[in-house]
Amino acid sequence: MVSVNREIVARMHSPVALIPELAGHIVAAGGKRLRPLLTLATARMCGYTGEHHIGLAACVEFIHTATLLHDDVVDESDLRRGQASANALWGNQASVLVGDFLFSRSFQLMVDAGSLEVLRILANASATIAEGEVLQLTTANDPATTEAAYFDVIRGKTAALFAAASRVGPVIAGRPDTDADNLEAYGMNLGLAFQIVDDLLDYNADQGALGKTVGDDFREGKATLPVLLAYARGDKKERTFWRRVIEDLDQKDSDLEQALSLMQARDAISDSAKAATRCAEDAKQALLAVDGESELAETLADVADFCVSRAY
Amino acid sequence: MVSVNREIVARMHSPVALIPELAGHIVAAGGKRLRPLLTLATARMCGYTGEHHIGLAACVEFIHTATLLHDDVVDESDLRRGQASANALWGNQASVLVGDFLFSRSFQLMVDAGSLEVLRILANASATIAEGEVLQLTTANDPATTEAAYFDVIRGKTAALFAAASRVGPVIAGRPDTDADNLEAYGMNLGLAFQIVDDLLDYNADQGALGKTVGDDFREGKATLPVLLAYARGDKKERTFWRRVIEDLDQKDSDLEQALSLMQARDAISDSAKAATRCAEDAKQALLAVDGESELAETLADVADFCVSRAY
Repeated sequence: MVSVNREIVARMHSPVALIPELAGHIVAAGGKRLRPLLTLATARMCGYTGEHHIGLAACVEFIHTATLLHDDVVDESDLRRGQASANALWGNQASVLVGDFLFSRSFQLMVDAGSLEVLRILANASATIAEGEVLQLTTANDPATTEAAYFDVIRGKTAALFAAASRVGPVIAGRPDTDADNLEAYGMNLGLAFQIVDDLLDYNADQGALGKTVGDDFREGKATLPVLLAYARGDKKERTFWRRVIEDLDQKDSDLEQALSLMQARDAISDSAKAATRCAEDAKQALLAVDGESELAETLADVADFCVSRAY
Repeated sequence: MVSVNREIVARMHSPVALIPELAGHIVAAGGKRLRPLLTLATARMCGYTGEHHIGLAACVEFIHTATLLHDDVVDESDLRRGQASANALWGNQASVLVGDFLFSRSFQLMVDAGSLEVLRILANASATIAEGEVLQLTTANDPATTEAAYFDVIRGKTAALFAAASRVGPVIAGRPDTDADNLEAYGMNLGLAFQIVDDLLDYNADQGALGKTVGDDFREGKATLPVLLAYARGDKKERTFWRRVIEDLDQKDSDLEQALSLMQARDAISDSAKAATRCAEDAKQALLAVDGESELAETLADVADFCVSRAY
């Protein structure tokens, strides 16, 4: 990971000073670096002994960072990773364009690694991410969004990159398709668990640990799993409440508390947590099917547990 | 070009309906399709007999379309290609994300073509475009921008893709580097001429033919060549005028007319046109150095003339 961080810093360089300045802001703010870790760990678990996994891990993080910059423009967020977001500091224009730069740079890094198969995996993931994000726009502010539509959104916007990052490892290690498929399934389920927990944390996290504003999704009227479960299970009066706050965005100060209390009453929080746990278990199951270095397999299983238990 | 258009329509498909809807809006609006034409014509001029040039031409147009969608968000433009811009119709969020999708799709198309060398050319061009756009942000609203800085901006934001589109042809045709370098130089100079004329048209075009609002650049305070020449050659009083309208964006109705009259007085319009003509001549010169199919070489020379003489 030290090498990956070094590569990230080295490759976000540009003669146009605003680019490393803005990109450095979001990269330096840290983040969990989960996605590049997946590429490193799956590669080594599969016996890869080369050095291309470093550049490819950096490239996965660049794709992620580019989507964060564009998400913040889309969401008009003021906080990201506990700091002022790039769009709040430099404006939407710079955030869009530096996101484009990082995205292009990630493809330059992939070309350096020289594998068309890896390029295909990550180009497909990038297209799927954008599809998931657009789908999310079309379900926004609809509390009657189905569970299936919610999973389509998070499979695209989040899990596709976890899946691709985990498939790159076995592919560069020259492993057969079955191993690549299993590690991709691991990453996919891990990503689903990660995003469900992310959506839960917006309602029940400690704001200091989270590094972003609790209740942001609520204030934007996002149709996340706890909301749509509470809506689907709610009576007529409850549905009227959800329509008002999520669809009409007509909110008063006490509404977040009221939303939480309805979610508790309808088991929407606990059942969302259970859904995340199930995905993490599926991830670990897929992992077990791959014959690989056991210490790294354990690390990857621990990552699945972390994604469910995390407080940030 | 019929095959390229068919490929473009086929490949902008997505199960997420908003994507082909929004992308179709901007693609159907037409545009000159100059960039894909460069890939087709340089490939055939160099004796390429395969079919990959079709997909790669579509991919060049996708990169261009993605940057247009992001530009309109950045510029907050209401008109594009004579129609309401995508961001005016669907909002900034959808424009950013569909731009990301088209950009990803273009890399999927490149992977299909199977050439790492082509991927390198177009990934480099994409990064350079983003750098040019960011550089443009940092020179925005500064009438004292130097001619050198202006050329750095347009080399990046516009000419890099013309250059890459023209290099792809000889590369897939298996021509030696000297031919690729010459055709790249053709594309680069063509792109410079194209952008200078674009910037000129914002001041002296017929709005109906142009398909966008005349004076947009002026109202946004863009430091284009006619502005910076008029500023550099202006006296103290003129510079005060330019500072007020371009830097402070403190404009009244008669200011556009006043700007035009100062530009005429300082030969800023005619000298910008001369700069465009010089670039087009350089483009044709580079073209002459390449031994290739003469009819297509003539077409490419005609494209250079068109870029200078065009009214839209």
